[in-house]
Amino acid sequence: MANPLIECVPNYSEGRRPEVIEAIVEPFRHRPGCALLDHRADKDHNRLVVSLVGRPGPIQEALMESARVAVARINLEHHQGGHPRIGAVDVIPFIPLRNIAMGDCVVLARQFGMRFYEETGVPVYFYEEAALKPERRALEVIRKGQFETLKVEISRPDRHPDVGEPRIHPTAGATAVGARKFLIAFNVNLGTSDLELAKKIAKAVRSSSGGLCYVKGIGLALQDRGLTQVSMNIVDYEKNALYRVVEFIRMEAKRWGVPIVETEVYGMIPAAALLDSLSYYMHLTGFEPKQVLELALLDELGKEERS
Amino acid sequence: MANPLIECVPNYSEGRRPEVIEAIVEPFRHRPGCALLDHRADKDHNRLVVSLVGRPGPIQEALMESARVAVARINLEHHQGGHPRIGAVDVIPFIPLRNIAMGDCVVLARQFGMRFYEETGVPVYFYEEAALKPERRALEVIRKGQFETLKVEISRPDRHPDVGEPRIHPTAGATAVGARKFLIAFNVNLGTSDLELAKKIAKAVRSSSGGLCYVKGIGLALQDRGLTQVSMNIVDYEKNALYRVVEFIRMEAKRWGVPIVETEVYGMIPAAALLDSLSYYMHLTGFEPKQVLELALLDELGKEERS
Repeated sequence: MANPLIECVPNYSEGRRPEVIEAIVEPFRHRPGCALLDHRADKDHNRLVVSLVGRPGPIQEALMESARVAVARINLEHHQGGHPRIGAVDVIPFIPLRNIAMGDCVVLARQFGMRFYEETGVPVYFYEEAALKPERRALEVIRKGQFETLKVEISRPDRHPDVGEPRIHPTAGATAVGARKFLIAFNVNLGTSDLELAKKIAKAVRSSSGGLCYVKGIGLALQDRGLTQVSMNIVDYEKNALYRVVEFIRMEAKRWGVPIVETEVYGMIPAAALLDSLSYYMHLTGFEPKQVLELALLDELGKEERS
Repeated sequence: MANPLIECVPNYSEGRRPEVIEAIVEPFRHRPGCALLDHRADKDHNRLVVSLVGRPGPIQEALMESARVAVARINLEHHQGGHPRIGAVDVIPFIPLRNIAMGDCVVLARQFGMRFYEETGVPVYFYEEAALKPERRALEVIRKGQFETLKVEISRPDRHPDVGEPRIHPTAGATAVGARKFLIAFNVNLGTSDLELAKKIAKAVRSSSGGLCYVKGIGLALQDRGLTQVSMNIVDYEKNALYRVVEFIRMEAKRWGVPIVETEVYGMIPAAALLDSLSYYMHLTGFEPKQVLELALLDELGKEERS
């Protein structure tokens, strides 16, 4: 059987200090079996999102090295930013890509969570497919009230961590480790500074208040630019296509005479999600991914690798 | 230096007989160094378009095998179809992809053209970058009047072939061999059976009558379906983006109350062309190709191959 391939997208609570960002990312560079595909620091969110693809073993080794740096250099007591967070290493999801099942990624997540606590002393919550308690499938439940609330409430039995003592790490908080499907982080920037409006539209589009079933979203201010943002995670892009999210938001914003100024894909996206939306806008029919030169070449290289 | 990689897209005048199509394509299967990425037969066009990617040597060997089949089994005297053609093997373009310059593809084209004539007796015209006469850069000039006219006019000095005696092959006609940039074959199907209207719109969008500079196009009937088609080649997709072509045609068709029913990409397309158009429709900003999971993986595999 071919090598199992996973994606891993650790999120760190640091988006402003370049030297800390580089120190966190460094363990992912030049490491056989672990490819650093992307890393993006956002000043408004004060958050770093890293995209890794590779084999489980090398990815876990690199994650531990990187986590030690983040735990040492990030202090949640001094951290401010637009994105909800509970820890220096805020979330670590394991995502099956090829030749590996979701169940295997659940095992990886739980093994890694235990090692992570042992080596850093940061308590761990398991989420989504790796959750040990049904209510903790939802990251929002684990992150409720963020670091500031969790440091008090962690001693309550319903908020005890899945791994570790029921007390927060004084500077590095807690960490959520999970297994999940490929997630697309997608932002729509609105031509208004009215934060209430962005929140209203986020509420309309997200599943928790009756919108699209696989969309999570919040409204944020982009203060530097006088804009607002509907910041979303699309947790099943096959069921909630990007174009449908864009056109849904366009429709809602139109009610207030507000335009979509731009959209952003944050981190990685599978080609299928892009082709799906392009087909909608351009009326493409009968189009197959293998018509894309690079995708056909990737398939050919894959064949050579197997033979 | 890494292996040179070219694309080659031979077009054959056969889109209806499955057993002939398969015999033409067979030499491209299971051949090291020559990957068959796509092949599409169109009944209306009565034409087969094959997309190959690989190293120049193996591709040329496979082309010769395939050409012998096409020359033996296609008779232009009995061929009818919506697409202009002069030969059984109608055109063979060589396209630089990686680690090879356009000048090298010109050399390949000319070498191949000479060998092709020697082994099949089919006269050859060189076109685009491989043209020996400036007016023959344009394939339309070489194909003017198609097989039926060329078989008479080939004896005129201005229509003499570049390789071979000035007489047509009685059944296989003549062949155009060239070197060019990556070309996107793109069709827009209109919700009307009015062929004159499709021709009018093709005229508006193509460069030869003042439209977009890198678009060639003709109007065709899709008789089976009661539709018409603007059938185009986009010869520089970086300068004439797909979305601009679609919206241009939409604008023209709107004048007559005619909708775009669907669009088709025929054969291969580079990812950049798709991302470009998607960015337009979805207001994407700051998006980089390496955010596409498969493109990032292809880069990583490329690195491993080189090391």
